[in-house]
Amino acid sequence: MPFVIVEMWEGRTLEQKRALVKAITDAMIEHAGAKPDHLHVVIHESTLDNWGRAGVLGSDEAKG
Amino acid sequence: MPFVIVEMWEGRTLEQKRALVKAITDAMIEHAGAKPDHLHVVIHESTLDNWGRAGVLGSDEAKG
Amino acid sequence: MPFVIVEMWEGRTLEQKRALVKAITDAMIEHAGAKPDHLHVVIHESTLDNWGRAGVLGSDEAKG
Amino acid sequence: MPFVIVEMWEGRTLEQKRALVKAITDAMIEHAGAKPDHLHVVIHESTLDNWGRAGVLGSDEAKG
Amino acid sequence: MPFVIVEMWEGRTLEQKRALVKAITDAMIEHAGAKPDHLHVVIHESTLDNWGRAGVLGSDEAKG
Amino acid sequence: MPFVIVEMWEGRTLEQKRALVKAITDAMIEHAGAKPDHLHVVIHESTLDNWGRAGVLGSDEAKG
Repeated sequence: MPFVIVEMWEGRTLEQKRALVKAITDAMIEHAGAKPDHLHVVIHESTLDNWGRAGVLGSDEAKG
Repeated sequence: MPFVIVEMWEGRTLEQKRALVKAITDAMIEHAGAKPDHLHVVIHESTLDNWGRAGVLGSDEAKG
Repeated sequence: MPFVIVEMWEGRTLEQKRALVKAITDAMIEHAGAKPDHLHVVIHESTLDNWGRAGVLGSDEAKG
Repeated sequence: MPFVIVEMWEGRTLEQKRALVKAITDAMIEHAGAKPDHLHVVIHESTLDNWGRAGVLGSDEAKG
Repeated sequence: MPFVIVEMWEGRTLEQKRALVKAITDAMIEHAGAKPDHLHVVIHESTLDNWGRAGVLGSDEAKG
Repeated sequence: MPFVIVEMWEGRTLEQKRALVKAITDAMIEHAGAKPDHLHVVIHESTLDNWGRAGVLGSDEAKG
């Protein structure tokens, strides 16, 4: 009965999300013994100004 | 001093959210001994294309 | 298909957790239209030294 | 290799977010021994109707 | 620069965790364009009494 | 009314956690306009075998 949260920047296509959710689900079934019916994956998409790495906002890094 | 995060699909009305936050707060006060003043509930609403179950995106399941 | 995460201090009994999970589930069903079979509640229990409010650790506040 | 999630109401300016991400990163480096290059901060901005305190939605409290 | 949180029951072996983290990382690289060096996966292991589905604690379900 | 979650490896001392919670709280007050009384910081400490970067578990990286 696991649940997976993906925190990432916005901008992936529907195709990418579809493949990502499928691949993470397969990984959980194969390696963690999860049953697919109760397995959820949620994607939290972040805008560039709501994410920082090494103390720098993504929106500033993109300009750099 | 608890904090509750609700991950769910978008689409609930303001009325539903109001009642949900109240009911979860009441549950925390009654069963977990929480003090209401320091008790927060945040709702993360997900679009259908950012949530998958059993490896299938919500936006694909809705079409099926 | 919602998922609820409860962040709170450790120390609740099994009885309290049982009642809490039931009450939050009921709240989600009644007010958010969730189907119980796909509804998960996870409790993250925190030790007093891993939680701060107003800048003060719980383990220091308890001594105060 | 830490990761920090900030849950807060929407409405901060880009300037505030930039300073906040920098200050949290500095705090993690100074007090938790984190290396900046692998340190991420993500901000989850919540609308007023997706947050409740003491059982009352932020959007209702703002009216009160 | 994504970050993945896996919420699941305790009990997986080190081997399983190693394979799971590798497979999720590969999924993120292939389908979400993530760079591995900045990609983190954290596993939150839950005890049976800190997880409920359909309103029933895992520790009660295991007995049923 | 913000809430901050810190995901990091275990091993910080009480002193470090105390200073970290204080510094993050100060950052939130100064840069995000948070009121300290309703500001919570929770630390999720992860064991080395529950965290991976670049597809490698922390417990394996430590050995390398």
